[in-house]
Amino acid sequence: MLAILREHGTLSRAQIAARSGLSRTTLSEITGDLLGRGAIVKVTTDAHQRAGSGRPAELLALDPRSGQFLGVDLGHTRVRAVVTDAAHEIIASGVTPYPARTSLPARIRAALGLIDRLGREQGLGLSALQAVGVGVTGPYPADTARADVSAVFRERFGAPVLVDNNTRFAALAEAGTTAARDVLYIRLAAGIGGGLVVGGRLVAGAGGAAGEFGHVLAEPGGAPCRCGKRGCLETVASVGPALAAAGVDDLDTLRARRFEPPVAAAMDRVGTAVGQVLASAALILDPELIVIGGSLPRAVPAIVDRAAEVVAAGRIPAGHDVAGIGRTGDGPLVRAARLGDDDGARGAVAALYRQSPLLAGYANLERSTR
Amino acid sequence: MLAILREHGTLSRAQIAARSGLSRTTLSEITGDLLGRGAIVKVTTDAHQRAGSGRPAELLALDPRSGQFLGVDLGHTRVRAVVTDAAHEIIASGVTPYPARTSLPARIRAALGLIDRLGREQGLGLSALQAVGVGVTGPYPADTARADVSAVFRERFGAPVLVDNNTRFAALAEAGTTAARDVLYIRLAAGIGGGLVVGGRLVAGAGGAAGEFGHVLAEPGGAPCRCGKRGCLETVASVGPALAAAGVDDLDTLRARRFEPPVAAAMDRVGTAVGQVLASAALILDPELIVIGGSLPRAVPAIVDRAAEVVAAGRIPAGHDVAGIGRTGDGPLVRAARLGDDDGARGAVAALYRQSPLLAGYANLERSTR
Repeated sequence: MLAILREHGTLSRAQIAARSGLSRTTLSEITGDLLGRGAIVKVTTDAHQRAGSGRPAELLALDPRSGQFLGVDLGHTRVRAVVTDAAHEIIASGVTPYPARTSLPARIRAALGLIDRLGREQGLGLSALQAVGVGVTGPYPADTARADVSAVFRERFGAPVLVDNNTRFAALAEAGTTAARDVLYIRLAAGIGGGLVVGGRLVAGAGGAAGEFGHVLAEPGGAPCRCGKRGCLETVASVGPALAAAGVDDLDTLRARRFEPPVAAAMDRVGTAVGQVLASAALILDPELIVIGGSLPRAVPAIVDRAAEVVAAGRIPAGHDVAGIGRTGDGPLVRAARLGDDDGARGAVAALYRQSPLLAGYANLERSTR
Repeated sequence: MLAILREHGTLSRAQIAARSGLSRTTLSEITGDLLGRGAIVKVTTDAHQRAGSGRPAELLALDPRSGQFLGVDLGHTRVRAVVTDAAHEIIASGVTPYPARTSLPARIRAALGLIDRLGREQGLGLSALQAVGVGVTGPYPADTARADVSAVFRERFGAPVLVDNNTRFAALAEAGTTAARDVLYIRLAAGIGGGLVVGGRLVAGAGGAAGEFGHVLAEPGGAPCRCGKRGCLETVASVGPALAAAGVDDLDTLRARRFEPPVAAAMDRVGTAVGQVLASAALILDPELIVIGGSLPRAVPAIVDRAAEVVAAGRIPAGHDVAGIGRTGDGPLVRAARLGDDDGARGAVAALYRQSPLLAGYANLERSTR
């Protein structure tokens, strides 16, 4: 019914019945529910649209100010939220920062506060959401404690909730901007995560942890990582270690001083480490496109350029033709992300549009929206 | 029609018509073609099966000695071939060795000689093959010169030919022996290759080169690789370098002396290098199962054990729970391959059974069998 109204704008109950093939009784129930939830509204009747009986035909339409889908990204240092309408257009977006290592319950409280504020300030109806997508850091759904996230949002909004890794959501959003069917996405921010699209499908992995580029070994015997291992890529190429290596305090300063030779050299090492991990991944997965996103490469785009060089050097040389190894292709394109910091929240919403071919066979959805 | 005969054994033309829904004319054409190709035979009529007219009913059956599918693995040092009947049972299998670096045309000649010999020695009909699968080393279909492979076999057998990477075929065969939907397969032999099953589907990669574990960097600044780079896993963990590191001349000697401390230490280093590459791949893809196959681990099974230890050490520690990283699962099972050296040829045949869900959406098939 929402799909029909989205397509036709304004229709009478009889017209909806004809187009949907639903019985009057069923339709009446659905209409009552949607009117009650504020998803649709009754529209003033035009005289020329009247039925022959002389009784005014009641016309129905989607409420243009009613949010239909909510996407939330509970990142390491801030929550992002986006609200889209029935046409999938973003009608509200906001961010609330919090300190690194904020607990999950505190992140959720920040998210609910942000969403309330968005609704209040922008006069949005959020009482009739179709569904809510929530991105969390780390593997999902391996951590069963995360079921709490789903319960909190389901209770607050009375809608189905889909919870998944926030960076995988970002990968979904980025992949949605290209036609490539094999995409690696990596995000360098307060943490490092990633996502994979293989053969046109988003990949979860057997334990929900696919795309954990951040904990691939980058420096044998290197610095201790919060995961308990040493020398993970995250200890080299996430924001904290990158700032430390550059000798600056924040990303704005890093951006301003990125052409100073010691800073540039430090960022070159960051790009090299990222490139080495991606070069291995590229040989194993043979993607068409590698996308590097996150706040760090947004501040220092040269990191992407350096990583691209290392990926190119790591592939089997093109044109090299010996017995048993054929000539290989040009290798993947490596480029910066197109979307900004709201990529995770956008992806959380994109995951709710179930018709996306990117999500065909993606088991997490079935599991989480029940 | 072949499917109906496979299920019912022996049927009259009228029975086949009833079960297939095909017209008598169409059925007559198909029957004539299959009889001509030797795929089916006319069977002696039993008296009690006679139709009321008194004229003996002609019964048809699959020819039990007619090969239906041919799988060929053009490896680095030998060609393997398997022939299966209509029930997908292997009815013939053979191998012909050749020196490493044998050219592709010479490998093909060896394959055709082997297949002729199999047919002759075992009285097999190979004139009515349903399809032929051919595994080649290196990426496919990136190398357009490989189209020749397809043409040679198509002309020789008059059947559709599917060409793909031989190790990917081996991965398909191994994955077919498990219920796991996310599987990494690596083969350590004269060369090193691999294959991926992601979400229950075999992965080709954008350029047909997915699974090239052999050319992932294992030793920075290491030995030159035939691919043109240095320090690739293949320079450490393929048969040649492994024999050299152990100071022995062939795999039989390696197997016999594998418990001598210097040999064991060398093989431990091989397993460590393999494990490090697989540990990165496991973090990125989060598989349920990692299978290590090929002649080298068949000679020295301890390589698999060592690689399994390194993969386990490389995953995010289980139970480690800090803000932003949830508890993770147990990580993948790492084990030796179940199939032997004929895995590539078996997989080439398995790829011809189009109904396998492992092959859903696998674009190479559509491309190659036209």
